[in-house]
Amino acid sequence: MNEIKIFSPATVANVSCGFDVLGFCLDTVGDEMVIRKTDKKGVFVTKAEGFNLPLETELNVAGVSALAMYNALKPDCGFEIEIYKNIKPGSGIGSSAASAVGSVFGMNQLLGNPCNKTQLTAFAIKGEALASKCEHADNLAPALFGGFTLVKSISPLEILQIPTPNNLYATIIHPQIEIKTVEARAILPKQVPLEDAITQWSNFGSLIHGLHTNDYQLIKRALHDVIIEPHRSQLIPYFKEVKQTALQHGALGCGISGSGPSVFSLTEGLEQAKNVEAAIKKVYSKTNIEFDVFVSKINTEGVKIIG
Amino acid sequence: MNEIKIFSPATVANVSCGFDVLGFCLDTVGDEMVIRKTDKKGVFVTKAEGFNLPLETELNVAGVSALAMYNALKPDCGFEIEIYKNIKPGSGIGSSAASAVGSVFGMNQLLGNPCNKTQLTAFAIKGEALASKCEHADNLAPALFGGFTLVKSISPLEILQIPTPNNLYATIIHPQIEIKTVEARAILPKQVPLEDAITQWSNFGSLIHGLHTNDYQLIKRALHDVIIEPHRSQLIPYFKEVKQTALQHGALGCGISGSGPSVFSLTEGLEQAKNVEAAIKKVYSKTNIEFDVFVSKINTEGVKIIG
Repeated sequence: MNEIKIFSPATVANVSCGFDVLGFCLDTVGDEMVIRKTDKKGVFVTKAEGFNLPLETELNVAGVSALAMYNALKPDCGFEIEIYKNIKPGSGIGSSAASAVGSVFGMNQLLGNPCNKTQLTAFAIKGEALASKCEHADNLAPALFGGFTLVKSISPLEILQIPTPNNLYATIIHPQIEIKTVEARAILPKQVPLEDAITQWSNFGSLIHGLHTNDYQLIKRALHDVIIEPHRSQLIPYFKEVKQTALQHGALGCGISGSGPSVFSLTEGLEQAKNVEAAIKKVYSKTNIEFDVFVSKINTEGVKIIG
Repeated sequence: MNEIKIFSPATVANVSCGFDVLGFCLDTVGDEMVIRKTDKKGVFVTKAEGFNLPLETELNVAGVSALAMYNALKPDCGFEIEIYKNIKPGSGIGSSAASAVGSVFGMNQLLGNPCNKTQLTAFAIKGEALASKCEHADNLAPALFGGFTLVKSISPLEILQIPTPNNLYATIIHPQIEIKTVEARAILPKQVPLEDAITQWSNFGSLIHGLHTNDYQLIKRALHDVIIEPHRSQLIPYFKEVKQTALQHGALGCGISGSGPSVFSLTEGLEQAKNVEAAIKKVYSKTNIEFDVFVSKINTEGVKIIG
């Protein structure tokens, strides 16, 4: 096998009470990538369609993660990478993570799977760092492992796979505004009230328990973020209206995807997810902001071969 | 049935990263209580052996929780309570919780179990509040439900039963010093660094996952408290030495039980627990502080009938 086509999915990081550590994987939206083994040594990004991305390997997220892996494994061949990008950069659903994951997953397949998924995450972190200026894995881990993942620590890298209830769906709305990462970070407090921190870890522990026990009502009661959302939601126009509407139409919870501007809702069942989709579409249709909205089952497989 | 004898166990609250919400139940040490149905209406504490406890119902923890239940249910009888106290008040292993739980559990049995365990916890909270001046359930819940419990919220009261790995043991050392509750609270910061809070909820979520998956090594990697222990451990002489010794002798983790002064260690297996017991005994034997030390399996049953 000298060429492989893969689907690298969009992901939601943070997930309300799981700020900075939890993420889950989407199914409907993702990038497609072709990875090709070549006699010529080195890593080359030969095509990037969909959005305006640099082709220079060192400036391309998929290129940088591929290079990290290439330099570590020193294989007796080279690789070409073609990117067919569907996830809009800056949308808050793991666009750079999908690129970073796709190249290393594809190379690993072509090399006969010498690396496990945690090792692939470690390479992908280098690509993600190019885009977000810091090493984090809360989008990478769900893209690689699928389902819900908890990044217990970055150093050493430890990723836990949390069970995903079978009937869990997400509705994502992407208001097409730009949130600068710098601004999204600067708005966070350095210190938080101990009382709020206790509420947050109580909710987070309850969420992990709810995911293990398929307890949708507990998941609903746990999906609250008393620490980050009160600050970052100010950067997303009509966040309150969207959240209120989603909850009124049956969402278990609703929060900021990554650092925004996308907003996710979780629901039990496809029908509820579509109800939420229709309802929050109405909210944004009344504004002058462009937006996309879609429904996705939680993807328990993660990045995968499609050809 | 007009009389019942029960065993009301000691408990460990907080459990490192689970500050204020997590607890587990012990087996070896607990109070015994006799609850008796009487024709004479009212709640009467007729005996309290072991430690010097008030017999006035309104001043006695077991009496106050019993009264809360009695006033809510208005049964057509009265109750006498005898307390044979083994858990030293102020030791940090849920002495008042055992009293508060024992009376309501016994009354519930004699009345044909009209209340579920969450309802019993709500009554017991009133007794616990007499002792600790605030309403909390992190010792009550494990005493009533057994195993590990997560008190998701107090209002409304919601208690989650977290699975207990089968081979989990605790070693408890009780240095016989007094820590004033006021002091243990005053030493806590009102604000904590966001970064530390993230570490704490990452560990707490990982601990819940580890308990669900019987992953002793993950439990070990998760049993860290970066928020409370650095402050409160200053109130416990030789805490660092005990902790270091416990970890060196195979403990998965070691931390403050409740607000101290007792210190708990968790181990995989009885043999390891005994090794830890012997090792930390040596540490305290070199000091001039009196202490008790004991090993216990995690008690998955909680409070129970013994006659």
